[in-house]
Amino acid sequence: MTRRLRLGMVGGGEGAFIGAVHRIAARIDDRFELVAGALSSDPQRAASSAAAIGIARSYADFREMARTEAAREDGIDAVAIVTPNHLHARIATAFLEAGIHVICDKPLAVSLDEGEALARLAREKGLVFAVTYTYTGYPLVRHARALVQAGALGDVRLVNVEYAQDWLSLPVEHQSNRQAAWRTDPALAGPAGCLGDIGTHAYQLAEYVTGMRPSEVSAEVATFVPNRPIDDHVQAMLRYANGARGMLWASQVAAGEENALRLRVYGTKAGLAFDQQNPNELWITPLGGASERITRGRVQSAEALHATRVPAGHPEGYLEAFAQLYTDAASCIEQGATQGDGWLTTVDDGVAGLRFIDAVLTSSRANAAWVTIE
Amino acid sequence: MTRRLRLGMVGGGEGAFIGAVHRIAARIDDRFELVAGALSSDPQRAASSAAAIGIARSYADFREMARTEAAREDGIDAVAIVTPNHLHARIATAFLEAGIHVICDKPLAVSLDEGEALARLAREKGLVFAVTYTYTGYPLVRHARALVQAGALGDVRLVNVEYAQDWLSLPVEHQSNRQAAWRTDPALAGPAGCLGDIGTHAYQLAEYVTGMRPSEVSAEVATFVPNRPIDDHVQAMLRYANGARGMLWASQVAAGEENALRLRVYGTKAGLAFDQQNPNELWITPLGGASERITRGRVQSAEALHATRVPAGHPEGYLEAFAQLYTDAASCIEQGATQGDGWLTTVDDGVAGLRFIDAVLTSSRANAAWVTIE
Amino acid sequence: MTRRLRLGMVGGGEGAFIGAVHRIAARIDDRFELVAGALSSDPQRAASSAAAIGIARSYADFREMARTEAAREDGIDAVAIVTPNHLHARIATAFLEAGIHVICDKPLAVSLDEGEALARLAREKGLVFAVTYTYTGYPLVRHARALVQAGALGDVRLVNVEYAQDWLSLPVEHQSNRQAAWRTDPALAGPAGCLGDIGTHAYQLAEYVTGMRPSEVSAEVATFVPNRPIDDHVQAMLRYANGARGMLWASQVAAGEENALRLRVYGTKAGLAFDQQNPNELWITPLGGASERITRGRVQSAEALHATRVPAGHPEGYLEAFAQLYTDAASCIEQGATQGDGWLTTVDDGVAGLRFIDAVLTSSRANAAWVTIE
Amino acid sequence: MTRRLRLGMVGGGEGAFIGAVHRIAARIDDRFELVAGALSSDPQRAASSAAAIGIARSYADFREMARTEAAREDGIDAVAIVTPNHLHARIATAFLEAGIHVICDKPLAVSLDEGEALARLAREKGLVFAVTYTYTGYPLVRHARALVQAGALGDVRLVNVEYAQDWLSLPVEHQSNRQAAWRTDPALAGPAGCLGDIGTHAYQLAEYVTGMRPSEVSAEVATFVPNRPIDDHVQAMLRYANGARGMLWASQVAAGEENALRLRVYGTKAGLAFDQQNPNELWITPLGGASERITRGRVQSAEALHATRVPAGHPEGYLEAFAQLYTDAASCIEQGATQGDGWLTTVDDGVAGLRFIDAVLTSSRANAAWVTIE
Repeated sequence: MTRRLRLGMVGGGEGAFIGAVHRIAARIDDRFELVAGALSSDPQRAASSAAAIGIARSYADFREMARTEAAREDGIDAVAIVTPNHLHARIATAFLEAGIHVICDKPLAVSLDEGEALARLAREKGLVFAVTYTYTGYPLVRHARALVQAGALGDVRLVNVEYAQDWLSLPVEHQSNRQAAWRTDPALAGPAGCLGDIGTHAYQLAEYVTGMRPSEVSAEVATFVPNRPIDDHVQAMLRYANGARGMLWASQVAAGEENALRLRVYGTKAGLAFDQQNPNELWITPLGGASERITRGRVQSAEALHATRVPAGHPEGYLEAFAQLYTDAASCIEQGATQGDGWLTTVDDGVAGLRFIDAVLTSSRANAAWVTIE
Repeated sequence: MTRRLRLGMVGGGEGAFIGAVHRIAARIDDRFELVAGALSSDPQRAASSAAAIGIARSYADFREMARTEAAREDGIDAVAIVTPNHLHARIATAFLEAGIHVICDKPLAVSLDEGEALARLAREKGLVFAVTYTYTGYPLVRHARALVQAGALGDVRLVNVEYAQDWLSLPVEHQSNRQAAWRTDPALAGPAGCLGDIGTHAYQLAEYVTGMRPSEVSAEVATFVPNRPIDDHVQAMLRYANGARGMLWASQVAAGEENALRLRVYGTKAGLAFDQQNPNELWITPLGGASERITRGRVQSAEALHATRVPAGHPEGYLEAFAQLYTDAASCIEQGATQGDGWLTTVDDGVAGLRFIDAVLTSSRANAAWVTIE
Repeated sequence: MTRRLRLGMVGGGEGAFIGAVHRIAARIDDRFELVAGALSSDPQRAASSAAAIGIARSYADFREMARTEAAREDGIDAVAIVTPNHLHARIATAFLEAGIHVICDKPLAVSLDEGEALARLAREKGLVFAVTYTYTGYPLVRHARALVQAGALGDVRLVNVEYAQDWLSLPVEHQSNRQAAWRTDPALAGPAGCLGDIGTHAYQLAEYVTGMRPSEVSAEVATFVPNRPIDDHVQAMLRYANGARGMLWASQVAAGEENALRLRVYGTKAGLAFDQQNPNELWITPLGGASERITRGRVQSAEALHATRVPAGHPEGYLEAFAQLYTDAASCIEQGATQGDGWLTTVDDGVAGLRFIDAVLTSSRANAAWVTIE
Repeated sequence: MTRRLRLGMVGGGEGAFIGAVHRIAARIDDRFELVAGALSSDPQRAASSAAAIGIARSYADFREMARTEAAREDGIDAVAIVTPNHLHARIATAFLEAGIHVICDKPLAVSLDEGEALARLAREKGLVFAVTYTYTGYPLVRHARALVQAGALGDVRLVNVEYAQDWLSLPVEHQSNRQAAWRTDPALAGPAGCLGDIGTHAYQLAEYVTGMRPSEVSAEVATFVPNRPIDDHVQAMLRYANGARGMLWASQVAAGEENALRLRVYGTKAGLAFDQQNPNELWITPLGGASERITRGRVQSAEALHATRVPAGHPEGYLEAFAQLYTDAASCIEQGATQGDGWLTTVDDGVAGLRFIDAVLTSSRANAAWVTIE
């Protein structure tokens, strides 16, 4: 057995949602052991969280952690960054400087400049920098991507992606919902609310599957909950270089929706549909034909099998998709694949997400004028 | 028994799709008998079609038909117009002038001017003028409308409507597909292709259910099939006076889609979803709650029951929805409700559809600039 | 045009469910005109019902109707029998004796003897005798049958059919529900309640699609509502001559179910699934493979197209399936196909249903012992 | 933090399906660390499997493992038994005798006698004995059970449970499919094939949710694949003491089915439906009403929340359900709840499963005569 990689974590103290998810994800495939953490900026809380979770080495400060771990014989191989967005860049920089691989939650940073600097630094240092676009860990998302690459859809004509939730429909940020509080505070979340939190997932999923980056966007963000200082809805029209058209929307005020990330892609030969709420199935319909319901476990492509643990009919879910990112990051680290393996989303995908955020905000300020992306 | 109303038909000769649909629809609830027709502009074909269908009085010319029927003691009460779009206005005018009620396929006309003239004329003459927006005949569409009116969704924030087909993905207009031929020919279909054919259905359904007309639209039409002189795709962003946002798209090149008209409306309290391909169910999900699957036949609102023939679990479909329009038109005619009954779509809805077409084409020519509707 | 066939109706006066359904069904494809009726055994009600519906000739007595119509030049070609079950045999006999074709609701009769006598008489007289097993009129049921016949499933191993409703969960027969009243009264419905009303549909659908009649049944009926003198639930295990196994159940006390007739058939090569509540789709899944969702309108088999009116995505429903039986009966009458056309369910299918009822009741009385069918 | 419990494993060497599943399940919630194993009866393979997996202490023999671990200060707290069925009883006995808690795959044993002896021994020793009926770990299965207990369905009338797979449709046991080889060999699997492998899951799920054990069963097993020495299909009718009826079937030759365990329960007030292939939703339909789609994460019952990791719309699956059993076993061990916590399935549920197997085989040998259970 290859030894487990040693993992550290910054953020994710008690009560945080995404930190606990990262920890489960890191455990599922048994490629990491979590041995160090700076789980909170409050040293007390950091220590008690580490003790509760059973992490051996607790730090009060992420810079100290980077320094100390880099110096240890048995220091961490990689760090998972699961803080609010505004800290991502600072923390990632510290660990990259210390020669430690990074696994960072999305969005990568709160500005495009920050993100580009991180990408440069990771390249200079020759380190793996994974960005956890969770939904790309689904076997059927990878299969979809492989199908498009193989030409199964023909030329892509239409892209339709949406991400709808309802959990910010009311001003819950004022009701001791800590998640809501930081995600609706531009000082912590950055300038994009719904756009940064889930709009980037939608954007990234469409790009990941189609292999196409839109060239222009016409968009507007909106805020439905009074006095919220950040967007809770975004909608956009997309143009692609090959003439394809697209629509993208994301909303956190879509009453009744849970976590509805749905992608449809239509080509000259066939269309596909994927809904992350039913991630064990992928629909392909040929032009004029009958839909085929492809299932995880039954489909035999290398891309899907690579990301599959149990047979068809034994549903895998969100945590397994997340685990796949950790597993792929582990493989990249072990193999020195610092540019990724072609399937793992990296700092470059993080930068692409920031470019999209930038373009949407620019367009929105200009009354939804068309803005070139890049 | 009230006597059956006497119906005439213009267009709909052998091989036409929508003419046959209208005839079945007129029969289902037994409120009409079809007694006269000018089924084709080719007199030979008109006569043979009439004979095949069993229509007593066949005319070679719609003007002659209007004149003659108006003069007969037992002349028709109403005429169904099922020709290509460019003839709608001329024919409707002839029958309105002759004092005969009109049931006209959509789009109402090929220009807003034509449409407004029809609306004026119908009003002057005090005649019923139904426009067959088929999908408003579904019991659960009416129930959805009633729910929104009653405030079940709270204030509407988001409107999402789409209409996707794939039958024009290839240049079938050159392959003896008569439907495709006239629907892609601006001389017969008018300036809007996909936009006029199905985009107007999407627009109308959203308006019918929400009771809200968008105030501004940013849109672009596109043509994917080379050398097609008309759009086969349209996408738009919508703004409403109350701050609500919307997205609308319609495509006839969405590979794999059959006739996917889907509406979602999200309010401050709940969201709803309807797919005309599964018209016996309507989904309502309260904010943060569990979805409810409301079914035709089981739901007991007056609006739904009015449009229902058989009990729950005995699916009704497209033809019954179409029949409902005929039945409501019959009631309006019998009761002299020349402005409609509040549920039947009339010439005013037809004009609204033309306004939408106009605004979309204007916006599209201006690189998707925002255009005020009305 | 072939002239419309002249149709009479016995039963189906005001307030009856199935009579109205038969009338719509007879109108949809325009092959019949309803010209005579004995709509109620109460002459007053018969006359007023006929007037309300617009039937020209009303009779107070079905025997007089048979006699008189047979004598008229323009007498009816066929009669539709839509009374409670106990009268079917008497009425059908009268019209067969008079040389008039019969379209009879199911179950054919209240005893196997009655049924067999009818089959003999129809044969002697050389008349068409259709039994309206509605669900066989669905295009995708016919397509399913054709697939099985063509060997697409391989050898059939398992048959699973169910029919679940909830409308008799409470003692509604005592609450002025006329439907419930006669259907739970053995004097009117015959010895089988749920078994006769919907169990026979389930049985027939399985046989229709598989082409296989079970050789043995082990079954029990049950009555859940206290003091109900007839079964409201039936469950059975089936054995087929080729070694296949099956399960069948039907219930009118399955809380929450509307009209859930569902069939699954598994063969050595593939399985199929059909739910009449979603009749525009049929599922085929090959062994180890991905499910295919076949849709009405898009599937191009002769069997399905024969029973299809409108294109894919324009849902057809229960009334169109019912109409198909009328249309096929019309064709059989016109072509003198007194044994049916191979697709229309006839008196022989009605007799098979009675044999099944007989076998189930025999088995149930013997504590679910295996009983040979036939 | 409570220290992680130390876990051993017997069986589950390289290439085994269920061993890997148990290991992931044990990791997900981080309550166990796997420190010892006798992964194969082949010492070489045992050692290499342990090394590959990273297990510290490898044993060539389970008896030696039980003895040695019991003697160590840091010996295992619990053992997971994941061998073929015929070894379960022997291994469990050895560990119970050594005072070590047991987590055993189902079926518990290959005979009722064996099973009852295990139950007695576990009781005597005062040890936790969990049996991994995976599907009871789903939050919505627990919620369903709580709903039935709370009377939400009224009195249960009908129980319908099925478990359909297709992976044994062909004689794959002769094609180097090791899973198939032992599961179709009575010497390793015991006398029940499909019945023991998945029929018991179906039986157990129905009992778990309804809280009702059937009093009588009429059943037959069947073998469809020639020369297979064990059943690959079972079907049964059930009677309950309160008059309720049920049907159960399980098949491993149902072409096209993956892992279709589906339960429906109908009571006097409402019905419920659950399909483990879509475990994030549970359907409740009141008598005569609209279905409610209850979702994991959104439903707030204590039972469901106890078994939930991530919010609604972030699907959990089979591995999380399995993890829940480990987590509940850990809690029972830590709290000394040797009879379980009321939700964890234990040796008594394992014995109930064996009683069902016994009754079905007895009934089947007697031509499906009714056999009393217990």
